[in-house]
Amino acid sequence: MPQQQALIDLTLQLADNALILGHRNSEWTGHGPILEQDIAISNIALDLVGQARYFYQYAARLLNESGESVTEDTLAYLRDGWDFKNCLLVEQTNGDWAKTILRQFFFSAAQYYLYEGLQNSKDAELAAISEKALKEVIYHLRWSSEWVIRLGDGTAESHSRMETALEDLWKFTGEMFIPAAYEDSLVQEGITVEPSSLQFKWEEKVKEIFSEAGLLWPGTPSGKKGGLLAGGKEGRHTEQLGYILAEMQFLQRAYPGCEW
Amino acid sequence: MPQQQALIDLTLQLADNALILGHRNSEWTGHGPILEQDIAISNIALDLVGQARYFYQYAARLLNESGESVTEDTLAYLRDGWDFKNCLLVEQTNGDWAKTILRQFFFSAAQYYLYEGLQNSKDAELAAISEKALKEVIYHLRWSSEWVIRLGDGTAESHSRMETALEDLWKFTGEMFIPAAYEDSLVQEGITVEPSSLQFKWEEKVKEIFSEAGLLWPGTPSGKKGGLLAGGKEGRHTEQLGYILAEMQFLQRAYPGCEW
Repeated sequence: MPQQQALIDLTLQLADNALILGHRNSEWTGHGPILEQDIAISNIALDLVGQARYFYQYAARLLNESGESVTEDTLAYLRDGWDFKNCLLVEQTNGDWAKTILRQFFFSAAQYYLYEGLQNSKDAELAAISEKALKEVIYHLRWSSEWVIRLGDGTAESHSRMETALEDLWKFTGEMFIPAAYEDSLVQEGITVEPSSLQFKWEEKVKEIFSEAGLLWPGTPSGKKGGLLAGGKEGRHTEQLGYILAEMQFLQRAYPGCEW
Repeated sequence: MPQQQALIDLTLQLADNALILGHRNSEWTGHGPILEQDIAISNIALDLVGQARYFYQYAARLLNESGESVTEDTLAYLRDGWDFKNCLLVEQTNGDWAKTILRQFFFSAAQYYLYEGLQNSKDAELAAISEKALKEVIYHLRWSSEWVIRLGDGTAESHSRMETALEDLWKFTGEMFIPAAYEDSLVQEGITVEPSSLQFKWEEKVKEIFSEAGLLWPGTPSGKKGGLLAGGKEGRHTEQLGYILAEMQFLQRAYPGCEW
């Protein structure tokens, strides 16, 4: 695989993860039931869509150098499901507040260690975007950690909802630490970090928060008995992504290239 | 009408206007077609929901002093349509980008002169919230003005869409300058400003921007021939509000008082 194509694929993965989770979170805006938290999750959504923009802009520049004519907007709004490289975790439905919180916590913890590593990428642009975005991710991780503890260590009802969310989501966490084909060569070049090297730090963070939250550690997510689901990074998605794209891309496809 | 009740009603009107328009704007989040503007309108949505919170918190305090047991969240998520006091303009559907922009411009211009006046309210709390919110409204007004000019003075298509939006929305603008019963006594006490006193400044601003945008001034919005629609401030709404509340309040009503 040519190096340039791998770099484009990685950049799109970073963008797609942020866009899809941002879109999911934005489904909460104005739906309550708590105004304060409604605003918090909407702010996180905006941070993520903002990060997606930077990565899409970079991917568009790389693609235009390769002779393709794309923009950040066509990358976000005109690609098909099989072109999206986000991990399966971020496309899963919001469910209740417990599931939204746990999805955010699992993702933000992985994103934190990934961006931390990418700050030292040999690709200066990825390093710069990651460094800038890391400040936001620190907040997302702290906020979602506090909620995991609050719900896990809250009422019987909230604890039980967290356990259900954990059962729903755990099988999607392992994918974040399995490299896609296009990541392998970039690891060797020092452009990205080995996904599996993030796993240990991520597990330590999850164990720490779960311990405070009174939640049981379910065993390493890529363990053989884990029933792990993967494929998103290479374009193989759950049906959920189709619904998101149908909603998200409706306007751009209904009015192609509208510039008015 | 007891003065305290009038103050509560006015505060709820200010909150409801901000919440409903914030909710409408948030319907754009993650729907494109332009990521940059998607983020801008979502940020405006968050500003407005934030303003709504401050007004709801104040209204809740006043209501609790009167012996009722409410919170900012129950005021936002558990009142019925006939209790909402927002003007009809803000509940109108998003339509296309032209309509969303024009609705924002009409509202932000009125909100700007209103908050400017409320800064000198004899009610210290309304004065403080308005002063804080005014900074945000200055940005909303500038942003929406620039878009009105860009679309009005843009392509034939964008100009025609602005004219259609104008036809849809103009009849809802006059209501902002007609005092509701509960506003009259508060004007005399120096707690709020006479709505009709804002009209002249609002019209000058609209004429200025319309002139740059190449849009025709349709005649004063409360003129006798205007076919003006009103009633929102007193709880008489278009069917649109029902749809918004059904969507917005679903969670709180499905899980009453959920605190987990």
